[in-house]
Amino acid sequence: MNTFGNIYRLTNFGESHGPAIGGVIDGVPAGYDIDLAEIQRQLDRRRTGQSPTDSSRNETDKVKFLSGLYEGKTLGTSIGFVIENSDAKSRDYDACKNIYRPNHADYTYQAKYGIRDYRGGGRASARETAVRVVGGTVALQILKAQGIDIKAHISRIGTHTTPEEMLREIEQAKAEGDSVGGIISCNISGVPAGLGEPVFGKLQAMLASAMMSINAAKGFEYGSGFDSAYHRGSQLIDSPYFDKDSNRVRTRTNYSGGIQGGISNGEDIYFNVAFKPVATIMRPIETIDTESNSTILRMHGRHDVCVVPRAVVVVEAMAAMTILDALLLSRATQLQ
Amino acid sequence: MNTFGNIYRLTNFGESHGPAIGGVIDGVPAGYDIDLAEIQRQLDRRRTGQSPTDSSRNETDKVKFLSGLYEGKTLGTSIGFVIENSDAKSRDYDACKNIYRPNHADYTYQAKYGIRDYRGGGRASARETAVRVVGGTVALQILKAQGIDIKAHISRIGTHTTPEEMLREIEQAKAEGDSVGGIISCNISGVPAGLGEPVFGKLQAMLASAMMSINAAKGFEYGSGFDSAYHRGSQLIDSPYFDKDSNRVRTRTNYSGGIQGGISNGEDIYFNVAFKPVATIMRPIETIDTESNSTILRMHGRHDVCVVPRAVVVVEAMAAMTILDALLLSRATQLQ
Amino acid sequence: MNTFGNIYRLTNFGESHGPAIGGVIDGVPAGYDIDLAEIQRQLDRRRTGQSPTDSSRNETDKVKFLSGLYEGKTLGTSIGFVIENSDAKSRDYDACKNIYRPNHADYTYQAKYGIRDYRGGGRASARETAVRVVGGTVALQILKAQGIDIKAHISRIGTHTTPEEMLREIEQAKAEGDSVGGIISCNISGVPAGLGEPVFGKLQAMLASAMMSINAAKGFEYGSGFDSAYHRGSQLIDSPYFDKDSNRVRTRTNYSGGIQGGISNGEDIYFNVAFKPVATIMRPIETIDTESNSTILRMHGRHDVCVVPRAVVVVEAMAAMTILDALLLSRATQLQ
Amino acid sequence: MNTFGNIYRLTNFGESHGPAIGGVIDGVPAGYDIDLAEIQRQLDRRRTGQSPTDSSRNETDKVKFLSGLYEGKTLGTSIGFVIENSDAKSRDYDACKNIYRPNHADYTYQAKYGIRDYRGGGRASARETAVRVVGGTVALQILKAQGIDIKAHISRIGTHTTPEEMLREIEQAKAEGDSVGGIISCNISGVPAGLGEPVFGKLQAMLASAMMSINAAKGFEYGSGFDSAYHRGSQLIDSPYFDKDSNRVRTRTNYSGGIQGGISNGEDIYFNVAFKPVATIMRPIETIDTESNSTILRMHGRHDVCVVPRAVVVVEAMAAMTILDALLLSRATQLQ
Repeated sequence: MNTFGNIYRLTNFGESHGPAIGGVIDGVPAGYDIDLAEIQRQLDRRRTGQSPTDSSRNETDKVKFLSGLYEGKTLGTSIGFVIENSDAKSRDYDACKNIYRPNHADYTYQAKYGIRDYRGGGRASARETAVRVVGGTVALQILKAQGIDIKAHISRIGTHTTPEEMLREIEQAKAEGDSVGGIISCNISGVPAGLGEPVFGKLQAMLASAMMSINAAKGFEYGSGFDSAYHRGSQLIDSPYFDKDSNRVRTRTNYSGGIQGGISNGEDIYFNVAFKPVATIMRPIETIDTESNSTILRMHGRHDVCVVPRAVVVVEAMAAMTILDALLLSRATQLQ
Repeated sequence: MNTFGNIYRLTNFGESHGPAIGGVIDGVPAGYDIDLAEIQRQLDRRRTGQSPTDSSRNETDKVKFLSGLYEGKTLGTSIGFVIENSDAKSRDYDACKNIYRPNHADYTYQAKYGIRDYRGGGRASARETAVRVVGGTVALQILKAQGIDIKAHISRIGTHTTPEEMLREIEQAKAEGDSVGGIISCNISGVPAGLGEPVFGKLQAMLASAMMSINAAKGFEYGSGFDSAYHRGSQLIDSPYFDKDSNRVRTRTNYSGGIQGGISNGEDIYFNVAFKPVATIMRPIETIDTESNSTILRMHGRHDVCVVPRAVVVVEAMAAMTILDALLLSRATQLQ
Repeated sequence: MNTFGNIYRLTNFGESHGPAIGGVIDGVPAGYDIDLAEIQRQLDRRRTGQSPTDSSRNETDKVKFLSGLYEGKTLGTSIGFVIENSDAKSRDYDACKNIYRPNHADYTYQAKYGIRDYRGGGRASARETAVRVVGGTVALQILKAQGIDIKAHISRIGTHTTPEEMLREIEQAKAEGDSVGGIISCNISGVPAGLGEPVFGKLQAMLASAMMSINAAKGFEYGSGFDSAYHRGSQLIDSPYFDKDSNRVRTRTNYSGGIQGGISNGEDIYFNVAFKPVATIMRPIETIDTESNSTILRMHGRHDVCVVPRAVVVVEAMAAMTILDALLLSRATQLQ
Repeated sequence: MNTFGNIYRLTNFGESHGPAIGGVIDGVPAGYDIDLAEIQRQLDRRRTGQSPTDSSRNETDKVKFLSGLYEGKTLGTSIGFVIENSDAKSRDYDACKNIYRPNHADYTYQAKYGIRDYRGGGRASARETAVRVVGGTVALQILKAQGIDIKAHISRIGTHTTPEEMLREIEQAKAEGDSVGGIISCNISGVPAGLGEPVFGKLQAMLASAMMSINAAKGFEYGSGFDSAYHRGSQLIDSPYFDKDSNRVRTRTNYSGGIQGGISNGEDIYFNVAFKPVATIMRPIETIDTESNSTILRMHGRHDVCVVPRAVVVVEAMAAMTILDALLLSRATQLQ
């Protein structure tokens, strides 16, 4: 399904090499000022990533809003928007027409639909994440008005964790015609206690679904995460106390990652998302064509070596939509 | 929200120490034989775990079906069922009435609802996972008729990975009044290519949401998972080939974990779920009461030292509901 | 689907002659006192109707609550409940096993599911409306705390509109072994302006769906209704004015039925629901058996002559759930 | 909410005088040929109605498809589309800025959102129904490939029921500066038995919600409709028989309107929708301004005298989306 969220909902459309991508944001609270230039800045972050080594495809990614805003404010009605695919050279992809690229969605889309737009990955292309950035930046602006902020950063590329080493790792992979994976860490501050729903709608379940829906994401953990498995309970206790400065209950440590029993406790929410190396590499790889004959795939042209730098803003966007949705849900389940 | 799924949906109710827990399963395909004894066996697996060291609370967990079945077959109508809370001694929990247990949902439920059933965790208790086992076992029986099977096992307890060591680790934690975490690994075989939806409904996003909604789950990864972050793309290529024996496209390796572009490719789907140590330990811990005064919590009585053994069947149940839901959704993708 | 509503949601289960019917109410705001005796009174209204001529089946319809309530208050968690089918004599229905009763769901269920519980209509029986009464009465109690009230009454039986004539019409139909239809009118007072959603979620669309889901309902109209089709616009203008007594905008007339552009305007909401005569009559009728052979159906036993008296409380219940759902949804519209 | 449907879903956006209206269609089965010229023809039907007396606003209503189609076929992915508002002269509506038009959504939107786009009704304008026509025509093309067809027509304008009289009634209302209502009747043929869901998802409930969401709709009835209330059960029996020509069970009459127990029985589905007279009339009417002061509204310019001719194609479109959605749901709840 192409809709994300319960109250604040983004419906997403668009193939990589069709006329345009875009979406509809529903459930937007009324009366908020939206800074359109900020949305464009976030789209630019996604386009270029945080490193100079990303794909050089010249997508201008200019978003055009079609509804739901009047004199700069949200009307409470659905916000439609489009981003044209200005630089869609389908010819680059003719080689893909009759071949299944390994680790891509080529074969699975064909199996599912019996038809596919093979150009540039079509619907499976990460190009659709631009739509998420628009939905997420609108959400983040509303959240900031509530004192909530979200910041993600790259915490690992391959085996490296310092900026210089990570950059060098990406460049080296590129030089070798290879690709490399990494981890993005995200922190959400200012979340009030009480967001998230019991049982199936736990806040970590909503966040996990959001993050694992991003292209190339292979893992999600929050708070003490996978490391919890290695520890004793006595090592991970977050003792609560009453903090006079902030006039609220806090915890001395935050192994819980800001969520207890599926519901936010007012501490920072933090989590990690693991991304695999890009599947497209500049080396010959063994595969089959659409007639199931063995063949060798040789990719050329512009491709990201590492998706992680461009995914940072996407992680923030998905987190923003998730938290705003949880905030609106929490409002809708109380009358007082 | 207390409903899981899109087409095959489980709606879940019940507090730990109320009269009963139970649920309603909707979207069940009609005409399938359901083995009620098998459901009871799976409930027994959940109750006792796979080790002798779990909580000795004597829950008989007898499920009673109220609708949706006739002469042993599914009617296609909603299946209501209840499991009575036969051994609910609320007095054990009077000590919890005015205290917030660290790392539990006590404070967050109070913050969210302004009211809570403090007895045994109320709605936040893992007791509700019995309801998931019922929903999951019905799903699994239908899946098995399609040739799909699901098996989970414990792959880590603390720092240990062999059965003997894992058991000893649990016993040692118990002896020390402590608790311990671990990892459950799950494998799904026989899934046809084509399940999962593009963009937000990717199969890994559905599975992640399902798994992260289980009490004490802290992380999810599928296929090459977090390990992907450390590797080069050239190391993780799953080259496809046509397998004459099975008369279908397969891949030589399966780093993808059976899912490419969010859609199953016919290979086994496998994933890991990390669980934290149980938050209730038999040692005095610093906390606050509901009036925000500092106090020391001393827990007594019957408590699991490690939730992992009992969670194995819950992981299988959530996986079964997710895969059946995806299978039913996929039926609407093509009309021919 | 067996779930009604968006935020306040009732999931419904149960066949007429299975062990029990029941449901799960989700999205219930926390902290409200619920009068269980009042719920039982409303169930009794449904059971006996408002006339002495209804089916004499002795259903005690005792509802048992299993969760979501603690010390008389809503916890905010899902409320599970069951009503046992204490008087389910399946033998009465053996005659129905191999026959399709005209105007019933026998054939359509068989066509849809390939299997059916033929006893007493199974899932298609109006018995399931008892579940709606429970969900609706919980909703109505919460609405009343907000100053909203809902009252329905019978406005027509056959061609008659006065109580005495309507009662006589039902008795006469019964004497003739026939059945008779009618109309229920419903009024909702105290609804604040601003409930309902634009476009597809218009308040009248939500109400229409709710009412047309009741067994035997054949038509819905609100405000000036079908009569609007016969009039000029100049005859149906509701001029607004500022009412100093209530300190709010009101309209001098209310042809709009309290809803304009899909959203409540603060005036009373009123609507009519038409019900067909009961399909089961005490006369021989031409039909076919499950082998498609022509046959004559002769019904015996206890059957309602007119469903309308018993449906009054069901109309109120569905209206209450709809309005509370819209009220909760509206809470997410503005954050300030 | 701005999304209609469960599997086949239309998400709708756009204000009357913003840059564009449009939508996203999700859940479209893959591999169907779509005739784009036919969609344009249906949009033209909506624009001009079936009479020469409609609003002369020159909306070209050219739809532009942005995704989900490749070489004329549906890809199974979401179809995004936009229709520009080429003739949006906002100045015509400056008079509306500070006034609440009676029977319009002006006051209710202000009450709901605290902000509104006053130009031409904004989101509440019937202009959004063009989006429904696109979604409905795509659905109808898929339905036709299954042998299902949908036809609606005007059956009443004011007190008249013949074409000549209906046309004269509209012209007379126009000459008098007034407006007039009417009824649209719709017939759906070729629907297989088994569509619709028990309890809340009855096919008539889905249709009622769809129709009552259309601007100016005031009532819905199907089969014997409101007339059922006046009749005895013996007068409305649809006796089933086995029809050798079509090799299936049919009924001798069709008072049921093709739906029994909420599920289609294979006979034609038919229903009526009542529309009120347009609220905008060319006569001075008493109202208030946004400061609650009494004033007189005098409307000028281009306005429909009767919405019914233009609504015919909208009724067909909503019916088509509803039936396709029910068809897809019925597929998704069966595995065989």
